[in-house]
Amino acid sequence: MRFEVKIEVLPREGIANPEGSTIERTLPALGFETAGDVRVGKIIRLQVEADSADAARAIVEDMCDRFLSNPVIEDAIVEVLTT
Amino acid sequence: MRFEVKIEVLPREGIANPEGSTIERTLPALGFETAGDVRVGKIIRLQVEADSADAARAIVEDMCDRFLSNPVIEDAIVEVLTT
Repeated sequence: MRFEVKIEVLPREGIANPEGSTIERTLPALGFETAGDVRVGKIIRLQVEADSADAARAIVEDMCDRFLSNPVIEDAIVEVLTT
Repeated sequence: MRFEVKIEVLPREGIANPEGSTIERTLPALGFETAGDVRVGKIIRLQVEADSADAARAIVEDMCDRFLSNPVIEDAIVEVLTT
């Protein structure tokens, strides 16, 4: 079966997030006073062939550990969506 | 009320996605033959103060149109999560 997978890669708690900080500083000047706590990361969407959703998740988590994210400074959240 | 909002910014269908293509070319060499169709975008998470989830969504969609995404080449998908 073919699964659509979504991977969110976000800087871990306590790790500098300069792009988020820049957006946050800009918001009030553009009239968005009520927004804050901005964090910016990467999203990766891909399709993977696997026997089950669990197998697809295992493959993608292995990818994340090996080269899609840096576990020292980033958290990767994997979501498997059936297609 | 305070809402946690997630914004996915991905290149539109037909727009070049060089980072995704590079990952896709690398996958087979790393043993991931079954994965493909990789697209890489940005994810923005933020908190926004609003009266309702709909109001929060309206604020964030306005942000997307004005400076978080480029609607000519990117799609922005807004998801409001209650906190």
